[in-house]
Amino acid sequence: MTDAATAPEPGTVYLVGSGPGDPELLTVKAKRLLERADVVLHDRLPGPKILEGLSADRCEDVGKRGGGERTPQPEINERLVELAREGNSIVRLKGGDSFVFGRGGEEAEFLAAHGVPFEIVPGVTSATAAPAVAGIPVTHREHTSSISIVTGHEDPTKPESAVDWEALAAVGGTIVVLMGVRRLPDYTGALLEAGMAPETPVALVERATWPNQQVAAGTLETIVDARDEVGIEPPAVTVVGEVAATRATVLEFLANETANEATAADEEV
Amino acid sequence: MTDAATAPEPGTVYLVGSGPGDPELLTVKAKRLLERADVVLHDRLPGPKILEGLSADRCEDVGKRGGGERTPQPEINERLVELAREGNSIVRLKGGDSFVFGRGGEEAEFLAAHGVPFEIVPGVTSATAAPAVAGIPVTHREHTSSISIVTGHEDPTKPESAVDWEALAAVGGTIVVLMGVRRLPDYTGALLEAGMAPETPVALVERATWPNQQVAAGTLETIVDARDEVGIEPPAVTVVGEVAATRATVLEFLANETANEATAADEEV
Repeated sequence: MTDAATAPEPGTVYLVGSGPGDPELLTVKAKRLLERADVVLHDRLPGPKILEGLSADRCEDVGKRGGGERTPQPEINERLVELAREGNSIVRLKGGDSFVFGRGGEEAEFLAAHGVPFEIVPGVTSATAAPAVAGIPVTHREHTSSISIVTGHEDPTKPESAVDWEALAAVGGTIVVLMGVRRLPDYTGALLEAGMAPETPVALVERATWPNQQVAAGTLETIVDARDEVGIEPPAVTVVGEVAATRATVLEFLANETANEATAADEEV
Repeated sequence: MTDAATAPEPGTVYLVGSGPGDPELLTVKAKRLLERADVVLHDRLPGPKILEGLSADRCEDVGKRGGGERTPQPEINERLVELAREGNSIVRLKGGDSFVFGRGGEEAEFLAAHGVPFEIVPGVTSATAAPAVAGIPVTHREHTSSISIVTGHEDPTKPESAVDWEALAAVGGTIVVLMGVRRLPDYTGALLEAGMAPETPVALVERATWPNQQVAAGTLETIVDARDEVGIEPPAVTVVGEVAATRATVLEFLANETANEATAADEEV
């Protein structure tokens, strides 16, 4: 804040969640801010339909760069401050919700530490929306009284893994794993070892609300095969728990299902 | 489905989450559906600003009735089927997200069992949005790798309480309690007994994004006093975990804060 006297009044940074990908699942506020922002900083996770709707000359892609690696978070933080100090109104757009494994917390802290005003615009998190549009309620009075949301990026076989799968299994509620396609065998294995029943229903929902949404359904024991059969690729959300079986009972009347969706459950039921 | 041959084609029921209460945090889709629906079934939880925006002649309040008791869920289920069979397009509007402790799962199952097509329109859940607008990210790379969401309606001192507070404490991530104002002393006590540190930060966010939003901040040991000092009333969301301390570090530059908000944190900082 040492340059506050010479610099113009900084612009506001809006930390905006885009929802799962359907442009209609943007909030009214997100849509308004995207239309008016001087600059939109985004990666690819908001999905093709939302990104196509933005005017390219106001967009900066801070996701994967030329070599395939991600723009480091510190660089994004610095860019936000730089743009704000030039007086711009900035939308920092993240897939789902910025504060659910979206590093919005770090960005908020950095902005506050540098005297940049910011506003948080919550979005529809994929953690609950991806199961929902596939016919899976993450809570159900008969089956579960809690939801735990974790990230599957971590290696559960490493002793220092931050996710305690054994403790999660003990909670006994629905477990939602974000970004958990590749490590599915590791953490389903960890949950089985922790004593969860092999027949516990599991579903994988890939690119929920995107044009190429896909669903695979199975159990803790069969879901890895179901994933491979359907060909589920990241990004996807994994739901573990009795609620995952709801899909099979409601699918026939679920109007969310898109015509081009492939699902292992359809073939098996 | 026995009367399918004689009845008109049933209308679609849209199970719609309203978000935390700010009309701008409705999704674009929820707004469109609310404008076009023949009937909107709702309770009071979407909040005054959203409910004021609906045309009264198309609304049915299925929340608290004359005597103060709620309309029983089976009655709501039956009403949805009845209206759909008359050919109406129906929005079933819930606060937050219908599938996060909103009984949307039961409604979906009932509709499917009665041959009524339905669509799920995910909303911004208060579980993540209420903390967010108060400056609290439910995840943070430095502090937590999981979020567990539970309801505080249950009595944790009863042995048959469905929420296992000891197991939740063992997970070590952020704990979000919905509808947990009254029983705050019970479950903060249970979490302390389970070995959580007394200085663990806790925040209560009442009526997030409503005109009379209030926040109380403290620790597992002090939050009951902070609740009483601020005068927090239901509905509110409780956040337990290191992330709750983020609010204090970012509050000065957080543009979400409304001028009329009372907060114990302001007085203490």
